[in-house]
Amino acid sequence: MADGTTRSSRWKTDRLQNGRGGTRAGDGDLRPSASDLRLPLPSRRRAMASCKSACFLSCDWGSSAFRLRLVRRSDCTVMDELRSGDGAAVLARRRTAAERRKAFEGVLADRVARLLRRHGLTAAEVPVAVSGMASSSIGWRELPYAGVPFRVDGRDAIAASVPFGTAGARGRALLVSGIRTGDEALRGEEAELLGFFSRPEWRGMADDCVVVLPGTHSKHAVVRRGAVTDFRTYMTGELFAVLSAHSMLRHSVEPEGRGAQGAKGSRAFEAGVACAKGRPLSEALFRVRTNGLFRRHEAGANAAFLSGVLIGAEAHDLAARGGRSPVVLCANARLQVPYAQAFEQAGIYPRLSVLGAAEADRLSVQGHGVLLDRLG
Amino acid sequence: MADGTTRSSRWKTDRLQNGRGGTRAGDGDLRPSASDLRLPLPSRRRAMASCKSACFLSCDWGSSAFRLRLVRRSDCTVMDELRSGDGAAVLARRRTAAERRKAFEGVLADRVARLLRRHGLTAAEVPVAVSGMASSSIGWRELPYAGVPFRVDGRDAIAASVPFGTAGARGRALLVSGIRTGDEALRGEEAELLGFFSRPEWRGMADDCVVVLPGTHSKHAVVRRGAVTDFRTYMTGELFAVLSAHSMLRHSVEPEGRGAQGAKGSRAFEAGVACAKGRPLSEALFRVRTNGLFRRHEAGANAAFLSGVLIGAEAHDLAARGGRSPVVLCANARLQVPYAQAFEQAGIYPRLSVLGAAEADRLSVQGHGVLLDRLG
Repeated sequence: MADGTTRSSRWKTDRLQNGRGGTRAGDGDLRPSASDLRLPLPSRRRAMASCKSACFLSCDWGSSAFRLRLVRRSDCTVMDELRSGDGAAVLARRRTAAERRKAFEGVLADRVARLLRRHGLTAAEVPVAVSGMASSSIGWRELPYAGVPFRVDGRDAIAASVPFGTAGARGRALLVSGIRTGDEALRGEEAELLGFFSRPEWRGMADDCVVVLPGTHSKHAVVRRGAVTDFRTYMTGELFAVLSAHSMLRHSVEPEGRGAQGAKGSRAFEAGVACAKGRPLSEALFRVRTNGLFRRHEAGANAAFLSGVLIGAEAHDLAARGGRSPVVLCANARLQVPYAQAFEQAGIYPRLSVLGAAEADRLSVQGHGVLLDRLG
Repeated sequence: MADGTTRSSRWKTDRLQNGRGGTRAGDGDLRPSASDLRLPLPSRRRAMASCKSACFLSCDWGSSAFRLRLVRRSDCTVMDELRSGDGAAVLARRRTAAERRKAFEGVLADRVARLLRRHGLTAAEVPVAVSGMASSSIGWRELPYAGVPFRVDGRDAIAASVPFGTAGARGRALLVSGIRTGDEALRGEEAELLGFFSRPEWRGMADDCVVVLPGTHSKHAVVRRGAVTDFRTYMTGELFAVLSAHSMLRHSVEPEGRGAQGAKGSRAFEAGVACAKGRPLSEALFRVRTNGLFRRHEAGANAAFLSGVLIGAEAHDLAARGGRSPVVLCANARLQVPYAQAFEQAGIYPRLSVLGAAEADRLSVQGHGVLLDRLG
């Protein structure tokens, strides 16, 4: 087993070792994770010596967050990073299409220049790959979705080379489109999927598996004979946020409150997963309310119950529809434990692999590497 | 078949005849329905002549709305009505428990006096029944829930006689509690259930049926051998409101927009019901988003699709879990058509009865009559 990846039998210990990692774009947590923000200075200096010809920039442009990373091309090590709240939804607000395009280009040019200046480099020297909402209808330049089957070596990817910057500091970005099926769409996760299957130890699974990418809009990608053939989206993270803030359930849950973590939180989460089985969400959710009314859990633990209901619905559906295919969970440190717990409870455990959280955080960087090698 | 009630084979024509009716408390539509606000003046005068000894007041106190009706005791005809936005959640906001109790009493005393003054009556002369959130923990005086089995003749109801008003204008209100099971709770619908089974033509169904009361929190009451033995709550109406206003889906739906009504809306609703089958809501909801992205429906019709997903989840669950019991739908004019359509699509049609919308609107009044006869 390669470093940073764990098979199901070991996830419970490995998740602790892998518990640092950053956060996936779009999961609402925009705090920089200090531990992976920069390498220690001496190794950065060594890396920089060869960077001019051997680096690229990886940009993950979500709805609510912007993330740019300087990456060593040979092994996709992240050498430096910038994050900001300039997500696509933020930039698109109250702007005409022309103003919006200018705003996207301006933000990218500014951030690229700022990040590269730290290393004595310029935009002209370092290629940039951009995935996520920048290629959407509210983005920088709209690109059509690629279709399915979408081969996981990247040959079906749709991308455009777009110039940016001002005279004297011009660069080109490889803007990557998403994928769609008849009923579903994703943008950004295509890079993560390419990154996942670029790793030699996982390549063999491309014959038959389901890759789970939790987040605001959790994605389950069905992969057969080397291609993504279908995927499903669950609004798990967004439902948690919207219901906790705006529904009647806000009186019954405190996501950061007492009992949200630890044994109490874990038991409440387990009860939520059990409650979601064989019940439509609209009914299971009302149990969050009666838990509060009947003082069954503290508000913190009840937030864990709500999380269990939502992640449980996803897990039970995967169990019912996933057949016997292996399942790979690629989650950040915060989501890895609850998803693995729910998958275990739903009976997926025997065919489950869990990617280390730090490795999951690097998937889009690795995918950008694949795309730049192929198309850049 | 009694006037105002329709069996399944006729609902499609009857719903048009019954299409006026008011709105159920708590469904978010607080506009008075002019047609049932008052009887024409001459018949009101005739009714008033005998009212002093033969009237009662029926108060339905929801989370967001207050509704008080003057009712002829002999046949539960509504003779006059007052509505306001003084719901329990509104009154409870930023008040201590003592201030809250005072606020509830003040609102009731004021509205009772105002309504009775129109008819030359005083609070001392007319009994008042109050159901809904007034007996909850954020209400006037908290009453414990009644348990199940809860007999539909009202003998298991829990109520308290509470004085209100000032010297010279004092009255007493019969404050009614809700019902709970191990996991579920309701307040207000117990009066509707008592009202339903007080009607001779429906009494026979108390042996075995499921009564569906759609609304913000839709209730399905399981009735066996003359008693409510269980019930389930679906947050259908609230999810529609919260997701339309606060989630990413708000960009894809316009509840009052083009295509929301008529044949386009009906087809989109049907597609939503089909989409909800065998899919967790968190996944089906994302189709609302891709419908928008792929320009599959106008935003108005897409709101009908969202409604179809949510009501469809309820209908499919009822179909899967309701066994072979007869189902009675008691919905206001706005919800009757979509619920009947979804129930038909889910295969419940052969065992479905639909109560007329105007009759459904009177159920709590009739239930209050039962309770005053028994306990008042």
